[in-house]
Amino acid sequence: MRVERPNPGFARASQQAIGGVEGEIRVMMQHMFQAWGSRGPKKYRDMLLNTGTEEIGHIEMLSTAVALNLEGAPLSFQEQVSNDPVAGAALNGVNMRHILPAGLAATPENCNGVPFNASHVYASGNIAGDMYANVAAEATGRVLATRLYNMTDDPGMKDMLAFLIARDTMHQQQRLAVIEELGGYEKQLPIPNSFPQGEERRKFFYAFFVHDTAKEVPEGRRTQGQSLDGKGQFKPMSSEPLGEEPTLQKPRPDSGAQTDQMGMGSSIAAAATKLVGGGSMA
Amino acid sequence: MRVERPNPGFARASQQAIGGVEGEIRVMMQHMFQAWGSRGPKKYRDMLLNTGTEEIGHIEMLSTAVALNLEGAPLSFQEQVSNDPVAGAALNGVNMRHILPAGLAATPENCNGVPFNASHVYASGNIAGDMYANVAAEATGRVLATRLYNMTDDPGMKDMLAFLIARDTMHQQQRLAVIEELGGYEKQLPIPNSFPQGEERRKFFYAFFVHDTAKEVPEGRRTQGQSLDGKGQFKPMSSEPLGEEPTLQKPRPDSGAQTDQMGMGSSIAAAATKLVGGGSMA
Amino acid sequence: MRVERPNPGFARASQQAIGGVEGEIRVMMQHMFQAWGSRGPKKYRDMLLNTGTEEIGHIEMLSTAVALNLEGAPLSFQEQVSNDPVAGAALNGVNMRHILPAGLAATPENCNGVPFNASHVYASGNIAGDMYANVAAEATGRVLATRLYNMTDDPGMKDMLAFLIARDTMHQQQRLAVIEELGGYEKQLPIPNSFPQGEERRKFFYAFFVHDTAKEVPEGRRTQGQSLDGKGQFKPMSSEPLGEEPTLQKPRPDSGAQTDQMGMGSSIAAAATKLVGGGSMA
Amino acid sequence: MRVERPNPGFARASQQAIGGVEGEIRVMMQHMFQAWGSRGPKKYRDMLLNTGTEEIGHIEMLSTAVALNLEGAPLSFQEQVSNDPVAGAALNGVNMRHILPAGLAATPENCNGVPFNASHVYASGNIAGDMYANVAAEATGRVLATRLYNMTDDPGMKDMLAFLIARDTMHQQQRLAVIEELGGYEKQLPIPNSFPQGEERRKFFYAFFVHDTAKEVPEGRRTQGQSLDGKGQFKPMSSEPLGEEPTLQKPRPDSGAQTDQMGMGSSIAAAATKLVGGGSMA
Amino acid sequence: MRVERPNPGFARASQQAIGGVEGEIRVMMQHMFQAWGSRGPKKYRDMLLNTGTEEIGHIEMLSTAVALNLEGAPLSFQEQVSNDPVAGAALNGVNMRHILPAGLAATPENCNGVPFNASHVYASGNIAGDMYANVAAEATGRVLATRLYNMTDDPGMKDMLAFLIARDTMHQQQRLAVIEELGGYEKQLPIPNSFPQGEERRKFFYAFFVHDTAKEVPEGRRTQGQSLDGKGQFKPMSSEPLGEEPTLQKPRPDSGAQTDQMGMGSSIAAAATKLVGGGSMA
Amino acid sequence: MRVERPNPGFARASQQAIGGVEGEIRVMMQHMFQAWGSRGPKKYRDMLLNTGTEEIGHIEMLSTAVALNLEGAPLSFQEQVSNDPVAGAALNGVNMRHILPAGLAATPENCNGVPFNASHVYASGNIAGDMYANVAAEATGRVLATRLYNMTDDPGMKDMLAFLIARDTMHQQQRLAVIEELGGYEKQLPIPNSFPQGEERRKFFYAFFVHDTAKEVPEGRRTQGQSLDGKGQFKPMSSEPLGEEPTLQKPRPDSGAQTDQMGMGSSIAAAATKLVGGGSMA
Repeated sequence: MRVERPNPGFARASQQAIGGVEGEIRVMMQHMFQAWGSRGPKKYRDMLLNTGTEEIGHIEMLSTAVALNLEGAPLSFQEQVSNDPVAGAALNGVNMRHILPAGLAATPENCNGVPFNASHVYASGNIAGDMYANVAAEATGRVLATRLYNMTDDPGMKDMLAFLIARDTMHQQQRLAVIEELGGYEKQLPIPNSFPQGEERRKFFYAFFVHDTAKEVPEGRRTQGQSLDGKGQFKPMSSEPLGEEPTLQKPRPDSGAQTDQMGMGSSIAAAATKLVGGGSMA
Repeated sequence: MRVERPNPGFARASQQAIGGVEGEIRVMMQHMFQAWGSRGPKKYRDMLLNTGTEEIGHIEMLSTAVALNLEGAPLSFQEQVSNDPVAGAALNGVNMRHILPAGLAATPENCNGVPFNASHVYASGNIAGDMYANVAAEATGRVLATRLYNMTDDPGMKDMLAFLIARDTMHQQQRLAVIEELGGYEKQLPIPNSFPQGEERRKFFYAFFVHDTAKEVPEGRRTQGQSLDGKGQFKPMSSEPLGEEPTLQKPRPDSGAQTDQMGMGSSIAAAATKLVGGGSMA
Repeated sequence: MRVERPNPGFARASQQAIGGVEGEIRVMMQHMFQAWGSRGPKKYRDMLLNTGTEEIGHIEMLSTAVALNLEGAPLSFQEQVSNDPVAGAALNGVNMRHILPAGLAATPENCNGVPFNASHVYASGNIAGDMYANVAAEATGRVLATRLYNMTDDPGMKDMLAFLIARDTMHQQQRLAVIEELGGYEKQLPIPNSFPQGEERRKFFYAFFVHDTAKEVPEGRRTQGQSLDGKGQFKPMSSEPLGEEPTLQKPRPDSGAQTDQMGMGSSIAAAATKLVGGGSMA
Repeated sequence: MRVERPNPGFARASQQAIGGVEGEIRVMMQHMFQAWGSRGPKKYRDMLLNTGTEEIGHIEMLSTAVALNLEGAPLSFQEQVSNDPVAGAALNGVNMRHILPAGLAATPENCNGVPFNASHVYASGNIAGDMYANVAAEATGRVLATRLYNMTDDPGMKDMLAFLIARDTMHQQQRLAVIEELGGYEKQLPIPNSFPQGEERRKFFYAFFVHDTAKEVPEGRRTQGQSLDGKGQFKPMSSEPLGEEPTLQKPRPDSGAQTDQMGMGSSIAAAATKLVGGGSMA
Repeated sequence: MRVERPNPGFARASQQAIGGVEGEIRVMMQHMFQAWGSRGPKKYRDMLLNTGTEEIGHIEMLSTAVALNLEGAPLSFQEQVSNDPVAGAALNGVNMRHILPAGLAATPENCNGVPFNASHVYASGNIAGDMYANVAAEATGRVLATRLYNMTDDPGMKDMLAFLIARDTMHQQQRLAVIEELGGYEKQLPIPNSFPQGEERRKFFYAFFVHDTAKEVPEGRRTQGQSLDGKGQFKPMSSEPLGEEPTLQKPRPDSGAQTDQMGMGSSIAAAATKLVGGGSMA
Repeated sequence: MRVERPNPGFARASQQAIGGVEGEIRVMMQHMFQAWGSRGPKKYRDMLLNTGTEEIGHIEMLSTAVALNLEGAPLSFQEQVSNDPVAGAALNGVNMRHILPAGLAATPENCNGVPFNASHVYASGNIAGDMYANVAAEATGRVLATRLYNMTDDPGMKDMLAFLIARDTMHQQQRLAVIEELGGYEKQLPIPNSFPQGEERRKFFYAFFVHDTAKEVPEGRRTQGQSLDGKGQFKPMSSEPLGEEPTLQKPRPDSGAQTDQMGMGSSIAAAATKLVGGGSMA
């Protein structure tokens, strides 16, 4: 790990790969919690723990990169004056959380300082659903990593990112390969495949809703031909209001609504006034 | 929709009108959820759905404006060097979320990248309370829109904002007009008006608390004269501690407090030590 | 302050009035921050500080009520067995945060344990916008307090809530009275009234959007007659798509999109493969 | 839409499908924001808007279902006493947010009352990454819907869920069909496919990290054979520390660390004391 | 690890020790980020990594315990009917997140389902400040663990908690021992000790603010005698308003305030009206 | 309070001391909630309320400082052009929340605009645990304040911060003095001291886990000698997997997993297909 030209602006950007929703804390925790709740074949539990552990190392790499990019960052508005305006290291571009509470170190936050929120740990107890959640994480994560790669010209940072990008390449493949291993689309779709499809509303299975079926329907694999699970045919269907307009009961008298909503406006209001009693309340 | 001089800084600012608490996602969802839970006269449900639907279009307008302002935004610290420092398009002023995970597009976040949080959807099931929540949203929303209008000199952006400002003008009026339609202050206050006022602590109804009634009390409509609901008189009242100082019971033995808090300090500590047994625990 | 029959379930419910978005922490902080940023007439700063201070006392009252309702709450699943099922004090109905980290005391959270989030402190620097935000807070707050009042039959709790309800009655009035004091709708609308209305898109000022103007338009104060600010007339207007469909530029080559999106699919993909070089990469 | 036996407990559970991270608000906003930032082929923008709009209807259906399940819910601890304990409608099992601030209506929150947070709107500007994010959302969404289906025996609720499950079936297919339409794994992987793979760290492309390559490596499609993109071979690789242990610079004198961390402990401490001056500071 | 009598209610409670702010995810991440940003003596970096790694194991233990307590949990309102009411396993007491999205597994959330938020990772770059943050975490963590211990009578769960409690005992000691190792209060206080105390407002160093010094001041180590750092004497001081009341400038004309706040109410309003032009705007 | 050279960048930084997790809103609320739930000796309740009240004044000071630093801040990209680049007042460095919704005033947020979240109010009902939480808050708070002091050279701001730093000096001392007052480490550790230590897993009390006890163990107060509570000896212990690998039961048929996870893959899938019925589903 090396940083040739520390750049606090790039430290700020790199935080997205640590604490952003596409970042490494998320994939680490997501793999771990999927593993700890794994009730399926044990081999997948092992795979998930394996990857989760690898991701801890990725967080460490990126956190170190952030700290190294903050070496020499301006600590006061005084220093800023003499800064090279081109280098982008001015205090305005610094994530002040890096200076003020963190003391020139990484934080578990995204590039805007929004702290990681563990609701992004998707773990459904369904192996296929979890694999797609992981593919999505690794795909958006690799997109992010390539954008960071393009953003910097520091050789040390490019080197680190080239490694992380390669790992995301592998992780995307591996998650999709689990779907193949389990029989591919035909056996795994729809997710969950343990729900008896006879209980679905059959008519809407493979319907592509359009506002007007008379108009030309877009051609393509996703609108025509056999469904991916081989059980039906894609077809357009006009989207129409289903069911009648809902009607809720009127508010109950003690439910804190206005009297007008109860359809008894004046009488209740009168009663309420009555309870207060006449005369001046002041 | 047009943007003559794309400005990533203005893209950043505009996010407040999309995902800020005064922004369009909030008013869209607030009107929708008020409608879906509406138990009052059906005409208000229709009005709420109508406005909620209009706001979806506003989100689309602003999101498109953000994307257009990001055309040509710097993607690397290299590009930044040759940037015109005056134009404000430098990477330091960019919301990095716009580049890194979003790929030059709007996000459902405010101008600091804080994601919209749906706890801001105020829907009480009380039509008058909801109308005032909507007035507050449209008032702070129009304040925000005029500040954005003042911030830019791009004619396309001024044009879009002039439209949004006009709609906020109307929405403020319309929500307040519902209160008038229902009989105004005299019939609608206090909210909820279905609670029998005789059960309130009558003495504190219209009292303006001051620290010292002897001192001159501020004059004005809000401290003197008849209350807005016509049922009492505003008057000053000295604010004094009400009730005695509260006393909670001591912690229970098994409640995880320190022994000193239980008022039995030494003996329990001794007992605890005893349980551990004498001698070295190492 | 007294609680005759401690009820952990009511302790749970009462948290909404402490840390809910309609609760006392919010109104306390909202008034305080409006005051500290107040640039308008000093008398409103005083009023805001005055109310903010009063609300601190309300948080104390409710927090004490929660602690008193938790006296005797079950601390283990053992105790629960012998509980009176009617009293509702069973462990299942307890907010476990009250027991586990808090040790039988209130927390700054709502009735579901969601912590208070200060984004709910609305303070716009615009006195009229802020007053309506406060009216909305006091209206939804009083709705909440009356629902709590209806939920309990403990005389001590009813007494406390009767006091809080009375204060909300006053606070609603007082905020609206400020609008009157400043000249009412005609002078204060639209908010902000300092923005020159000639710059709005005049055509959309007072238009009530409907999907079909030919159909009967709903009658009422909010759709017909003079606008509340006295400057125009409400009128229906057909809502139609405004402006053409937006077109964004294609993704830039280094922006992390798929090659197919750039409209140069195969050639770039080929180039990318080329860069990798032929032969096996494994 | 009908609910034969209103059940506040099921209303609580259903919230997960509205405001949970696998719920309809998320997929609605995710499709919308992907569409509004879409820079790829226009046909995908249309498809995304189409689905986003459909999901608004799903939120409405579920919100109505929640409100109908709350008809007759207990509003006070008094009512609870006479409740049928079997029906599960006791106040302890109610989401108090449904009663207290919402007035017997749905909220944009999950089944525990955690408000929807828009950071879950994944939109990367990369069509393949976004499709997998949508597959993940629809897969975990359908898992959730089938669990709700299994949880209730109300025919009206089963009917509504059977419809929603069928739509999720289609949406999973359609998102994966886009990948096929674009050429499948071979052309779309790794995501983003526009990044020149020659710049990755080639060695780590298709490596399955294991702690000990000598031990038997798990067999399966994801560890052996050709990679899904057809460009390499999966193979095991021993995971080892890469690079040396990182060393950060010592804290700077004015950076708020302890003097001991700066390796100059006593002298700086002495200097600091000196600055304070001798004698008593009290 | 064993659970003799699975109890979904205890699964719910145990989540506080996983994803609560006093829980193991927090201490794991806090130690890790303190280590990764450590600029002090290397031995403390090692210690922090060591503990951080240990805590990962604790999360695993608790997550497994949650999953085991959910074995046999009710999945439908049907099953609930025949449940043993004493066991506390009724659906009303279940965390529905455990069933609906998680499929009978632990989540990174607290006992109320509030997801862990990484803003609780306190890491200041100051070794003494960080040690006290860790002591606080381990102290509130051990309080929590003993309360969970008291809550259950399952021998397997008591066994696991007895282990975790013992580790917290050690971790409290160890963090405080670092302070001793560095010279104790006299050398480490005030934190940070690298700030020259001569620049503080000396007068307020060791002052115990009271509202009335004439009244008896509470006796005790914290109000009397030498300060802990040995540099001064504690003493009471009357708390009085410091400085004059702040005065902010009036709002600027283009800043979105009401005209009345600018002290030019009528004229600006007139001007604004003028800009709009006379006549009917409708 | 005075600000000689208003600096919007310093206004941004100062927000960390208001709404950051180390800031004044947190300590204010933390002391208040500890007091309101206090079940221990009354003198500590008084002390906590005393400090909590003092902190309200600190929020006011800092909020006023923010507003004063925003006087003259640029409101448009036009103004920015003519700005003095050295002063750091450029729009890029401004927190846009200060301008757009707040109207040049402070917000209850940190320096990145992340709103204060009340989950940071640590109040355990255990006096020793709470004191350490307060020490941690005051230590990280003073670190933050000294960094702000170093960041500015405005004499008015340095003066204000010198006061706040002095108060943090005192508050650190005072919290630790409570521990002394209660008997120090020997009587207060481990926290909570009311839990009978005989029930802990004695073996792990004072063990310093290392990966390899054969290697040299780090020397120091925290690894050797008597424990701080005087009840045992620190000693190294090799960290080893405790207990066997956990095994969860297979998913239940109706729990939404994939059929492959249930170990009955093909047959259930066949059954599911059967339920759907043969023939074309399209």
